[in-house]
Amino acid sequence: MQKTCVGIVGMGTVGTGVARLLLDYGDRTALHAGRTLWLERVVVRDVKKHRHVDLPAGLMTDDLNLILSDKKIEAVAVLIGGLEPARTIILQLLEAGKDIVTANKAVLAEHGGELFDRARELGRSIAFEATVAGGVPIVANISQNLSANQISSIHAILNGTSNFILTRMEETGVSFAQVLAEAQKRGYAEADPTMDIDGSDAAQKLAILAHLAFGVRVPWREISRRGIEALDSADIRYAAELGYRLKLLAVAELVPEGLELHVSPTLVKRGAPLAETRDAYNAISVVGDAVGTVFFHGLGAGQMPTASAVVADLIDTVVGRTRITFRTLALWSNRYAQVSPRDQDKVRGRFYLRFDVDDRPGVMAEITGVLGRHEVSIASVIQHAPETADTTVVPLVIMTHKTTEGATRRAVEEIDRLRCVRSASVRMRVLD
Amino acid sequence: MQKTCVGIVGMGTVGTGVARLLLDYGDRTALHAGRTLWLERVVVRDVKKHRHVDLPAGLMTDDLNLILSDKKIEAVAVLIGGLEPARTIILQLLEAGKDIVTANKAVLAEHGGELFDRARELGRSIAFEATVAGGVPIVANISQNLSANQISSIHAILNGTSNFILTRMEETGVSFAQVLAEAQKRGYAEADPTMDIDGSDAAQKLAILAHLAFGVRVPWREISRRGIEALDSADIRYAAELGYRLKLLAVAELVPEGLELHVSPTLVKRGAPLAETRDAYNAISVVGDAVGTVFFHGLGAGQMPTASAVVADLIDTVVGRTRITFRTLALWSNRYAQVSPRDQDKVRGRFYLRFDVDDRPGVMAEITGVLGRHEVSIASVIQHAPETADTTVVPLVIMTHKTTEGATRRAVEEIDRLRCVRSASVRMRVLD
Repeated sequence: MQKTCVGIVGMGTVGTGVARLLLDYGDRTALHAGRTLWLERVVVRDVKKHRHVDLPAGLMTDDLNLILSDKKIEAVAVLIGGLEPARTIILQLLEAGKDIVTANKAVLAEHGGELFDRARELGRSIAFEATVAGGVPIVANISQNLSANQISSIHAILNGTSNFILTRMEETGVSFAQVLAEAQKRGYAEADPTMDIDGSDAAQKLAILAHLAFGVRVPWREISRRGIEALDSADIRYAAELGYRLKLLAVAELVPEGLELHVSPTLVKRGAPLAETRDAYNAISVVGDAVGTVFFHGLGAGQMPTASAVVADLIDTVVGRTRITFRTLALWSNRYAQVSPRDQDKVRGRFYLRFDVDDRPGVMAEITGVLGRHEVSIASVIQHAPETADTTVVPLVIMTHKTTEGATRRAVEEIDRLRCVRSASVRMRVLD
Repeated sequence: MQKTCVGIVGMGTVGTGVARLLLDYGDRTALHAGRTLWLERVVVRDVKKHRHVDLPAGLMTDDLNLILSDKKIEAVAVLIGGLEPARTIILQLLEAGKDIVTANKAVLAEHGGELFDRARELGRSIAFEATVAGGVPIVANISQNLSANQISSIHAILNGTSNFILTRMEETGVSFAQVLAEAQKRGYAEADPTMDIDGSDAAQKLAILAHLAFGVRVPWREISRRGIEALDSADIRYAAELGYRLKLLAVAELVPEGLELHVSPTLVKRGAPLAETRDAYNAISVVGDAVGTVFFHGLGAGQMPTASAVVADLIDTVVGRTRITFRTLALWSNRYAQVSPRDQDKVRGRFYLRFDVDDRPGVMAEITGVLGRHEVSIASVIQHAPETADTTVVPLVIMTHKTTEGATRRAVEEIDRLRCVRSASVRMRVLD
């Protein structure tokens, strides 16, 4: 059987998983590729470190040149995190004539333009299925399987850590801080979880999907985003009363005026597939004009799900499918951007609002008056009696009819200045 | 821009949808394919019939030779139903050097071996995404995107008509016959719905997926199957009481002894994604050893969802991806079958049983005694008081613990011979 040599740079969690699939399940890979994917070389920083996989003697090195100068090696999986040296290594490998497979979302988010340009100039390819939603093959589905469609929207849960935290907050009723501490202790959240919980990680992934689906060109930092770090479990409770669950949604939606793009905690109607996506799972709901709604659900992270995506990319690369796909990919391409992001204030939808207000006559009229002046119309209201007799502040929860981001923002800013309002208000999107 | 000529044979519902995508949305297709897919010729039986699409003059013909002899035409979508002349036309097109895209599941189910062999001999390809689950790209996902995995199971809802009927029966409580009549009136079910409701359609689709995922070779008629035509809405009610929904599931599951393959009405735990798949939607839950569970959900039929799959296949075919994939596809290949189907009687699982029995002392002991002798152990029992005073027959519903198909079948056969049992018993699988 024909043999194609591949390499790996980086033997962290994902690298180890990829090596296992290539070494321990080589027969399977050969069956699906029609040739053997021969792991010829593994480059690591520290060759002495203990690895959770048995590598054949002589495979591992700390010298990248052994891959760069080895003409036999056709494709390399770059599985180190962070921006540098990842960027430089990818450029060196491209120059040396290697096709790239990577799981490094950050380096694409920051340097995708440069890396893709260079790959195109050199006639090489970069495959990146593992950068979005781990084991869920959403990159291939959007760029190939749904290619007969004009995609009109993507609604997705792309950060497993946030979804895990939201699921636990809902199940246990405890605070964000407590759940985060537990998740860190159990290894479900990073020591520094900032990028996961503030929406940055989801925005980076959304930027990649929006590029692919809409040919929009927007740096991920320009995507409007809010995370889950300020969420109060009270809002999860009120959402449940209204028949919703709170999810950190990444949304790209084509409207006549442009593309709405944002990452934000959103109330999703119970029973909807996205609302039922629990724990560390990821999910993506894609609407295409021909196909209708297609929903994908699976593990968005973890060693073997991510390795599954990397090895599928390696197979596609060595058999030649990736090269064909890469040519027409609307990703950091030099083609004219097909759509532009839309002004956030004009984004339409329903909103969930919570105001902590003085428990006295006239307050409801004051607040609903402001909403009315901003043309924000009310669909439902929850106001419970105070829980204890000595409380003089009560939560007023309002669900609006369809309105705009700008109208609700301006209304809430005005309401927050009223004397009857005792703390900063909560405003979240609603998906029906 | 480069131009590749394609043809269509058959202008029924799907053919019309494909023509629309190619003619009205050519820019989009060109963007994703990197070349124009030029619809050069459409072959129909009756050129005079009114069509729901504006075809350029001279495009339509009733003479297949105009495609066969036209060297410019590289790929042809064969979108006629039934076995003949579909089989002969596909063979003629292959001989004439055309690559094939088809939505005709029946012709593949019956003649797949012959057609694939011929395509391989001639160095041509056959793409068939549209044959299974309509717009849900499950063929590509199993054969490419999950190719790093040993798939261990597929649980799927593959027949939209059955799922629509089951959803309506559950929602309205009315009988199978009434819902079917309504579905036929509204165009959701064929005039002759036999293949849809007796499990044959799902079995044909399951045969294709099982071929792809497991390299098993089993003619679809050998797949054990039961349909929904004999379902009593009482069982849907009892299933709900136990926390389950009834679904027509197509299952392929790898066990050490072989492959379990069957289509049968199955109780699925509420809240599970398959249980929440409603109306005419299809869904497929795939478990791979690396990726874990990946779930796909979308429209399994209809003009534009199916056309979406056909056009994606046309794009893949003209850009060259299909040719690469086709080489290594474990579908009607001459390779040694990797696994064999397992003896049905040995298939393990939980079962739902209903017996209509005399309402008198000792009956429960008699029935549970038989179950015990066959080593079928009981997880839960529902027996309500008779609904009217003059009824002397009551339903006894039993949910078993894990046991085998064979043990429950033998036990139920014995119970059906007891004098206290008044009508044929019901026995269905349970998926937890």
